[in-house]
Amino acid sequence: MSFKFSIYTQDTITSARTGELELPHGKVKTPVFMPVGTLGTVKATSPEELENIGFDIILGNTYHLYLRPGDELIKKSGGLHSFINWDRNMLTDSGGFQVMSLQQFRKITEQGIEFQSHIDGSSHFFSPERVMEIEHNLGADIIMVLDECAPYPCTKEYAKESADMSVRWAKRCKIKHEQLGGEQSLFGIVQGSIFDDLREENAKELVGIDFPGYAIGGLAVGENKEDMLRIVNLMDKVLPKDKPRYLMGVGTPLDLLENIERGVDMFDCVMPTRHARNGQVFTRDGRLTVRNGKYKEDFRPLQDDCSCYACRNFSRTYIRHLINVKEILGVRLTTLHNLTFYNTLIKEIREAINSGTFSEYKKNFIERYTRSNDVQNI
Amino acid sequence: MSFKFSIYTQDTITSARTGELELPHGKVKTPVFMPVGTLGTVKATSPEELENIGFDIILGNTYHLYLRPGDELIKKSGGLHSFINWDRNMLTDSGGFQVMSLQQFRKITEQGIEFQSHIDGSSHFFSPERVMEIEHNLGADIIMVLDECAPYPCTKEYAKESADMSVRWAKRCKIKHEQLGGEQSLFGIVQGSIFDDLREENAKELVGIDFPGYAIGGLAVGENKEDMLRIVNLMDKVLPKDKPRYLMGVGTPLDLLENIERGVDMFDCVMPTRHARNGQVFTRDGRLTVRNGKYKEDFRPLQDDCSCYACRNFSRTYIRHLINVKEILGVRLTTLHNLTFYNTLIKEIREAINSGTFSEYKKNFIERYTRSNDVQNI
Repeated sequence: MSFKFSIYTQDTITSARTGELELPHGKVKTPVFMPVGTLGTVKATSPEELENIGFDIILGNTYHLYLRPGDELIKKSGGLHSFINWDRNMLTDSGGFQVMSLQQFRKITEQGIEFQSHIDGSSHFFSPERVMEIEHNLGADIIMVLDECAPYPCTKEYAKESADMSVRWAKRCKIKHEQLGGEQSLFGIVQGSIFDDLREENAKELVGIDFPGYAIGGLAVGENKEDMLRIVNLMDKVLPKDKPRYLMGVGTPLDLLENIERGVDMFDCVMPTRHARNGQVFTRDGRLTVRNGKYKEDFRPLQDDCSCYACRNFSRTYIRHLINVKEILGVRLTTLHNLTFYNTLIKEIREAINSGTFSEYKKNFIERYTRSNDVQNI
Repeated sequence: MSFKFSIYTQDTITSARTGELELPHGKVKTPVFMPVGTLGTVKATSPEELENIGFDIILGNTYHLYLRPGDELIKKSGGLHSFINWDRNMLTDSGGFQVMSLQQFRKITEQGIEFQSHIDGSSHFFSPERVMEIEHNLGADIIMVLDECAPYPCTKEYAKESADMSVRWAKRCKIKHEQLGGEQSLFGIVQGSIFDDLREENAKELVGIDFPGYAIGGLAVGENKEDMLRIVNLMDKVLPKDKPRYLMGVGTPLDLLENIERGVDMFDCVMPTRHARNGQVFTRDGRLTVRNGKYKEDFRPLQDDCSCYACRNFSRTYIRHLINVKEILGVRLTTLHNLTFYNTLIKEIREAINSGTFSEYKKNFIERYTRSNDVQNI
């Protein structure tokens, strides 16, 4: 295992901190936002563009890559980095979340998850051991244990049984992972729905197994924002301070600020890329829907002070036109912009933490982001 | 008008020649292939990428831009160059070809063409004068007269009436164009279907009006390749040697070679970009359909000696995967490759003409391009 996590600066007022991950494909400053490259590409972008924006780590989805093009083919290609030509770090999830989200048949037993492909209905089986084999074939720098992401809402009884089984799966993953060897690091995932005692118990058991990093799973699945923040607060107390914390699938710019304040170091979310494809862009003044008629003769860039390729070269008028006529360049430009927005935000947050001004930065960002009336503010 | 055409080298064996156009947005070496940017973007590419490949001139479609986003909006944006952020040259067609291709209602009279939008069925009218206004609003460096592109096949009677009217429209275009003034150059378009005498008469009448360049229209609309080449041979004799000849909407790599041999200087075609979107790529060994199963474990680049971003960084395996799962990056990569292929081909053709080896180059290219059995050769 090639892994090191160092904390640079601990905010004195909040739990926010900056740090650095040392991984097989280079260093990653934390807090970090990881764009999602579901099928071996962060949608609409090239690896060169992601490097130019400044991302040092991106995600791949094990479930999707296992089905298409298959982890064996990716292994033959020299692994995921080589397959997609990305020389920096990667993280793969375990597929657990995707399988649970499937509308198709799935059956969970102690042994693992039986499921049908969303593409052709074919039957597949993910056990903790099998998922480790797949994630080793993919070869990402950080890999995740197979867990059950309990549906929301669920009974406390269900949540407890599910979380307990996820701990047993985590143990099996670790054993298999160590057998397979190599430079990859395996993270555990805390479950327990929105029940504080279950979450605390689950986190402690995972910490007992000992992973180099811990994810907080099963959030951002429909619960109230207050529940999410309460659980993250709790995790900040329970999880070891010297290990990275990764809040999976989160979130909006405001979510990033709130959860960094509560000690989270790593995030991933499809939001910047998915919204981009719907013609929605993030700006310091909130989110704007560039498709809207009011931008028809708006010759300004998406955001005045943005350094991205879209903002340096094109007007809202032009981008609106491209999106409306469904030209690929439109989605490319909104995607580049949104990813630049997220990476800039997280970079500014790191700088604010390092200079002891995080709370002030957060207050100012939120004030401006939510002030304007002519934009959607989420 | 800011326009100059100089011939560098006249091939001694064939009618092939190299030259240079001097236009408001810089020089363009001929023969030249112009990618098609129908709606203000060459599909799937950015202007930066087109510049990096080496294109000095691209096309815009007047019909499409008139409907969306509208020529008035583009004028307000500072013209098409500014709207799409392209500092090099542009050419706009007149919309005549698109209107004739419409499935919707259209009515042609001496005054112009009444037609319904393919988007919302709304009624519009293109007269020669109106099209000049629109093309002046767009502001391309080279603009085209409104013509009627006669359907294929058509009777000789229809072809004659149509071609004669197109000459009258060409005169009206020139008058309006001169009234409007400015730096744009207006090209005439020869019509006359596949009838030699009509084509000759039509070309002579257009030359009598006097344009800085002449397009050969109404070809590549379904006629035999032999008919096309015979008409182009004829045009080589009839059109003035010292003016550029532009074969509209053509064509395959072999079409380029055959028609350059017959004295054509300019080409445009959607083929490299459209095929790219269908997962078909051009190589020196013919066209290959990268979606096909046989490329599943083909870790070579699309073409071994290609310098494009796709070939320098990605395998057929990966690109096949991207195309099959409909990821935008797949189409981006095949598009970059195909455009690079076309630009490399035309550059090599220019070099061959300049060094007196065009016929040899053509023979060798065709031999390799059509030799292989495992590719489609068109």
